[in-house]
Amino acid sequence: MLKKIEGRASFGGVQEVWTHGSETLHCEMKFAIYLPPQIAKASCPVLYFLSGLTCNEQNFITKAGAQRYASEHGVVLVVPDTSPRGRDVPDDPAYDLGQGASFYLNATQAPWSTHFKMYDYLTAELPSLIEKNFSVSKVRGICGHSMGGHGALVIALTNADVYHSVSALSPIVAPMSVPWGQKAFAAYLGENQDTWRAWDACELVRLSRTQMPILIDQGSADEFLDSQLQPELFVAACNASARPLTLNMRVGYDHSYYFIASFIGDHIAHHARAFNA
Amino acid sequence: MLKKIEGRASFGGVQEVWTHGSETLHCEMKFAIYLPPQIAKASCPVLYFLSGLTCNEQNFITKAGAQRYASEHGVVLVVPDTSPRGRDVPDDPAYDLGQGASFYLNATQAPWSTHFKMYDYLTAELPSLIEKNFSVSKVRGICGHSMGGHGALVIALTNADVYHSVSALSPIVAPMSVPWGQKAFAAYLGENQDTWRAWDACELVRLSRTQMPILIDQGSADEFLDSQLQPELFVAACNASARPLTLNMRVGYDHSYYFIASFIGDHIAHHARAFNA
Repeated sequence: MLKKIEGRASFGGVQEVWTHGSETLHCEMKFAIYLPPQIAKASCPVLYFLSGLTCNEQNFITKAGAQRYASEHGVVLVVPDTSPRGRDVPDDPAYDLGQGASFYLNATQAPWSTHFKMYDYLTAELPSLIEKNFSVSKVRGICGHSMGGHGALVIALTNADVYHSVSALSPIVAPMSVPWGQKAFAAYLGENQDTWRAWDACELVRLSRTQMPILIDQGSADEFLDSQLQPELFVAACNASARPLTLNMRVGYDHSYYFIASFIGDHIAHHARAFNA
Repeated sequence: MLKKIEGRASFGGVQEVWTHGSETLHCEMKFAIYLPPQIAKASCPVLYFLSGLTCNEQNFITKAGAQRYASEHGVVLVVPDTSPRGRDVPDDPAYDLGQGASFYLNATQAPWSTHFKMYDYLTAELPSLIEKNFSVSKVRGICGHSMGGHGALVIALTNADVYHSVSALSPIVAPMSVPWGQKAFAAYLGENQDTWRAWDACELVRLSRTQMPILIDQGSADEFLDSQLQPELFVAACNASARPLTLNMRVGYDHSYYFIASFIGDHIAHHARAFNA
């Protein structure tokens, strides 16, 4: 049952939050959706935004200031939660595993494999639900921050026929090579690292044939830059495979929503250009 | 001792939070300041923003998206806390009295009168501290939301020689006539309502000689519109005194930060026009 639990006027459109029972995740899920004013007259393209570790559907819609740009460009924003939730869903006391830390993959290992199928949820159940219940077109882009940047890159690279555009802010690009990814992949996918490759953007960019241009913004003062993000690995992977990439290193910016707010306008413009091409 | 406790790059400038011991309030106080990129080359005008009930210095800087417009116009934003704070400061369990609910006046009644001198803090100590420690000009405007809209109107109307501009979002304009104001004024000022008039914008606009244009935005779906805000009382007071007022009723908008975010750009442009006049 799809049910609206929030609705607030915003930049001429409306910012809503909905809840529904997910068949894929076996739990109740929330998602936020911004409907721009243009939707009153025509169906609009959809930009999915995947948030980072510890976030839910609220962080981006309250802090990023993205509604202004979505309103300007006539883009619907869909912001899912970052993982399955609830008392019946497995969790871990650490902030970087379990609820709030799905890494947007399909888990194969106990106790995670029953609920942690965020990849299937995001690529099939959720878009189908959005397209059925809102006045949106089939034109779809995906963007994300940090863990959500990893999710956006993986989803776009493995579904290049479905997504018209992709971008990421301070993404995890090489989860197999950094502590956040290694911990999560070992838990969700098991110790056999061959199974990890399907969820690593640096690996996928070598396999993908898409020439979809990839936009990445990264703050130079990001506290996770050297330990967890290492965008130079993605630059090398894209160069080795002749993939189009724009990486903007932003001097002095950190990992916070102040960084996201400063550059989300550029990202929404990037997607709008692809939607209108 | 003025001490920086946060600093983050934002829209080419920097969003900082500072703490200092206030002589006026007899407690440690925090304020947020956004320094736009223009400040590297020249001193910039300052817009003070006063937040509403329950807020501290964080709400506006994380949710309003105002840095983008301050960066465009070269305006410094100063966002103080909404009241004195701390274990030694009197408080009340209700959300609309005590800490987080100063109503930006000078209290005369026990137990509030020792610490609750926000009017003096905002018109003397804080501007002096800002002008001494940051590269700002003496050009000053003031804006606020809800209780902070009340504060902005009262401060500008009683200091029209000092403030170049004023505006408010969903302000309390007639505190003597509505429950929030009546409760706070009785506690802070006592039962003699003659002493309340000095803190009521509808009363003050009749006494003030300023022709400073006042900009107000108000959502038509604001849950406090009829009970606490009643902008029609301010329209009547301005009309009776031939004061210039622009009141934008915004259809469908509520009292939240989604409303503030949608129109704060118009307000910063309003102040920038006055600063450059």
